[in-house]
Amino acid sequence: MAYQINFEPIGHRVLYREGATIFETAREAGILLTSSCGGRRTCSQCKVRILDGDTSPIDESERAHLSEEEIISGLRLACATRVLSNLKVYIPQTSLMVAQRLELSAREPALSLEPVVAAYELQLKATTLKEPLADWEKLCEGLKEGYGLGGLRPDLSLLRSLPSILRACDWAVVVAERDGEVIDVRPHGQRLLGMAIDLCTTKIAAYPVYLNTEVSLASIGTINPQIAYGEGVMSRITYAMEGSSQELGESVIRTINQLIKEASGNPEEVIEISLAGNTAMHHLLLGLPVRQLGRAPYLPTVRRSLDIKARDLGLQAAHGAYVYFLPNVAGFIGGDHIAVLLATGLYETNKTAIAIDIGTNTEISLATRGTISSLSCASGPAFEGAGIKHGMRATSGAIEGVEIDNDGNYLKVIGNVSPVGICGSGILDVVYQLRKQCIIDQRGRLQDHPLVRQGLAGHEFVLASGNTTGTGQDIVITQRDIGTIQLAKAAIRTGINVLLSGTGTKENEIDEVIIAGAFGSYIDIASAIGIGMFPSLPLARFHQVGNAAGLGAKLALISRKNRTTAEEIASRIRYIELTTHPKFKHEFSLSLRFP
Amino acid sequence: MAYQINFEPIGHRVLYREGATIFETAREAGILLTSSCGGRRTCSQCKVRILDGDTSPIDESERAHLSEEEIISGLRLACATRVLSNLKVYIPQTSLMVAQRLELSAREPALSLEPVVAAYELQLKATTLKEPLADWEKLCEGLKEGYGLGGLRPDLSLLRSLPSILRACDWAVVVAERDGEVIDVRPHGQRLLGMAIDLCTTKIAAYPVYLNTEVSLASIGTINPQIAYGEGVMSRITYAMEGSSQELGESVIRTINQLIKEASGNPEEVIEISLAGNTAMHHLLLGLPVRQLGRAPYLPTVRRSLDIKARDLGLQAAHGAYVYFLPNVAGFIGGDHIAVLLATGLYETNKTAIAIDIGTNTEISLATRGTISSLSCASGPAFEGAGIKHGMRATSGAIEGVEIDNDGNYLKVIGNVSPVGICGSGILDVVYQLRKQCIIDQRGRLQDHPLVRQGLAGHEFVLASGNTTGTGQDIVITQRDIGTIQLAKAAIRTGINVLLSGTGTKENEIDEVIIAGAFGSYIDIASAIGIGMFPSLPLARFHQVGNAAGLGAKLALISRKNRTTAEEIASRIRYIELTTHPKFKHEFSLSLRFP
Repeated sequence: MAYQINFEPIGHRVLYREGATIFETAREAGILLTSSCGGRRTCSQCKVRILDGDTSPIDESERAHLSEEEIISGLRLACATRVLSNLKVYIPQTSLMVAQRLELSAREPALSLEPVVAAYELQLKATTLKEPLADWEKLCEGLKEGYGLGGLRPDLSLLRSLPSILRACDWAVVVAERDGEVIDVRPHGQRLLGMAIDLCTTKIAAYPVYLNTEVSLASIGTINPQIAYGEGVMSRITYAMEGSSQELGESVIRTINQLIKEASGNPEEVIEISLAGNTAMHHLLLGLPVRQLGRAPYLPTVRRSLDIKARDLGLQAAHGAYVYFLPNVAGFIGGDHIAVLLATGLYETNKTAIAIDIGTNTEISLATRGTISSLSCASGPAFEGAGIKHGMRATSGAIEGVEIDNDGNYLKVIGNVSPVGICGSGILDVVYQLRKQCIIDQRGRLQDHPLVRQGLAGHEFVLASGNTTGTGQDIVITQRDIGTIQLAKAAIRTGINVLLSGTGTKENEIDEVIIAGAFGSYIDIASAIGIGMFPSLPLARFHQVGNAAGLGAKLALISRKNRTTAEEIASRIRYIELTTHPKFKHEFSLSLRFP
Repeated sequence: MAYQINFEPIGHRVLYREGATIFETAREAGILLTSSCGGRRTCSQCKVRILDGDTSPIDESERAHLSEEEIISGLRLACATRVLSNLKVYIPQTSLMVAQRLELSAREPALSLEPVVAAYELQLKATTLKEPLADWEKLCEGLKEGYGLGGLRPDLSLLRSLPSILRACDWAVVVAERDGEVIDVRPHGQRLLGMAIDLCTTKIAAYPVYLNTEVSLASIGTINPQIAYGEGVMSRITYAMEGSSQELGESVIRTINQLIKEASGNPEEVIEISLAGNTAMHHLLLGLPVRQLGRAPYLPTVRRSLDIKARDLGLQAAHGAYVYFLPNVAGFIGGDHIAVLLATGLYETNKTAIAIDIGTNTEISLATRGTISSLSCASGPAFEGAGIKHGMRATSGAIEGVEIDNDGNYLKVIGNVSPVGICGSGILDVVYQLRKQCIIDQRGRLQDHPLVRQGLAGHEFVLASGNTTGTGQDIVITQRDIGTIQLAKAAIRTGINVLLSGTGTKENEIDEVIIAGAFGSYIDIASAIGIGMFPSLPLARFHQVGNAAGLGAKLALISRKNRTTAEEIASRIRYIELTTHPKFKHEFSLSLRFP
């Protein structure tokens, strides 16, 4: 018997594999539940709430991990619970890792720890009247004798607390040093927590890693609060230019502080932060002006990587902790794309490979014969459901997959509920299906068809009739929606083609297409090829790698060498400004057509 | 005919040298008026107000430097005004340099400019669509091409303003660089102002110097506002330990900000600050804990020099400007004493020399045979008039000099007014005169004498009778006052003797005694020798050098080499803790006696 598990609030429907636990089922579906024991019932982290359906009863070993209150409220350990019927499962924020379907497989570089912050254990002797030495000099002497370190500088905030720290922990300390600066001193045994932050236009994800033990904690994420100031980058730049950039920066700072607190409980544990964001997010967080970003030639204020004291930004962390910002390439290719290239290894591949990170702006890089060319194209927010009549985000009730045949429309709906709209992957599918069924022609025009009707603003295709939807209204795809998707897919394909022609690369020479990012991980590649968004290559050449930007940020967090590599990638990239490129207009008009 | 000029508000009375201007008369008396032309009627800076008396009339060349309003209010150029009677002259704050009698003579090292902040002029090309480059990268490229500089880091605050600065001054800029960090960018031609700060327990003095032209501006000074929290260092440490150290630090920050504003009008001009303070002032300004400073073994938190961003302390300056703090030696020997050693050249002398900076705590250093030994002694506030029945600061109405003979007491009173009290140099004189006239014995006890009477609390010597004083009351020196001075002079002499015996140096081997500091500049050396405070050496071996700490701060401001020297001095010093020294008690009891 096959059951479905409906995971809330992320709205994913998963088929139940017989004999598996909820934890295993989720993992196989790419939904990573928090767990440090790997599903062996020892860490108590993978708690979920059973909202509906029958499950295996609680046994004694599971009960030991749950309070009476938790049991009453329906909480279970996902790793201990087996499914006996269709199920609705709620995953609390604390049990959910952000990265879903992080299919980095063989591509994930070894996470070799070589952090920029070094930790030194010291047991100092208490200061006596006979051996008077200033606290800072005593610390320096200990580091000199124990580790041969010299010429150290103290962080001011640390210096202010140094006397009380040394005495409170009885002169047994761990010293955190970063490029000759002593940035923190803490009791023996306290670990150094690093935080990799992936700062996207839509969401912010944090990846905590203990830098001296290499233990990763559960990643956590939340919505970028700047969404209140506009969905896209451009609308936020406009808002910032009207004089409120500080407000935008501060909203993100507050949110990152919440994530830090959520990750560690004690922000003072955090000794280093690495941050990968697109150039606009980077600038707003740093309080850099964004005026130049908002108009041609879309120049950032700074490209190189930066090391900034966390406290100078209002971020809560250890005394002298720094934030490392990955380098930018251009106004619309930021540290997040560098992080993608770092994580996917595109910079060192011998193949001809393309990496695509689809979003409101889609960054594309082509590696071939030792060169990397990159560009950004304005693919628009259509894939996030914006600008589409019945578009919505990929949450419960969204049509995420579509098949159309002569018998009607088969819809996959997130959350297995009645559909209320359609999300990016669904839109991609439906346009492909319309073309496949010849309901639209090559130019995208809706043809005569039983499900095509005259709407208020032109023709529209009825995807779901009102009696099957959650709203009671028909869900339709309008002629205008199709046009919007045409513009988006044409932008991406134009980008790919300009990169190919600029390097004299033929389509079939592409060995690999890496699709990064959350949206890219959920699309149906066949549909994307079918509408001409991607070149027509064997499916095996496509890899959907999930949130590679987050992994890249983590790589930069844990290793100095990776930072050097990131800087090298940024300076190696041949950046192409697409909109002013001589081939842009021609390629774009060709790409608008459907195959 | 001899006239007197009475300078207000500093309360100094000066004899008029025939033919001299007010400017020259003041200068010879050690009162330095602001002037960049040196008294040649061209800079208009030495304006003073004639309060009383007759002067030479204004001529055309002088009139050209004064507004109609200024002339009506009695303002004159000191360099253009000759004296025709006794005169009362008011020196506005803006016309007064703080350092009085800065008799550094041959001892002043050459002020060779080698600032830690370098200035580079650049004329960049405006960014165009064809040559898109991020602003920071454009700046770096210019510095690389023009000056071969690489690997630069930007200050965050500068980076935030960089795009607007570059465009506002049409890409013609001066770049201020400090140890690989670009800390400011400003329009072509704008000068880099440095500020040396001498932070004393009683006063704060600022010495502005243009670092790229070597022009010094008038020094300015004000009272340390922490006086409201206690006259001495210890009372402020106590206040700070009771939880209000931030308040103490902030009061000084506000005052330094006022001095900066007064010096330059535009605090953003200030590119570097050097600061010499005693250890407690240093700690309070930096927000470092002072608990350890307040109890044996009186340990500072840090000894080494520090470079701290001005903005991290709340100091107003250029974007990324730093404050350089001279190193400390111990809890009661701070950067101000290092500055004295730097300014007086004691660290490199071949002679056997002693430097003494007299204050509530008196720091003494002995240089002999290539070594420097230093200690601090608690000489108390008696020399500032505190703890003395009729004691007062060295301001108008204070008896500053005394001679006693059989005909009575001859008094020098600051401001040439009726006396209202006695200041430090006067107390020193009177005690010496009492001993010389055998009115006190070797143990300091008042003897029978027409002017000695029984007061409410023991014997007292009538220095001035009520009918000659400004208060109408007798001004007396009590037995207790004499005891207070005994303790103070014994502390200083004990310090000297412990240093001598510790290095096997005989008194007559001392080639030179350097007396630094404001109070030390006004005392009568013969009186100080007469009461046994100083060893009995030929007067020619004593040099009163004025505010050497201020000069030392200035030397550290203008030259990287001097900072290295300061650090070397601090680490070379053999520090002696006087109160726990085995010879202390014995020496002290011997030193209490008068010769």
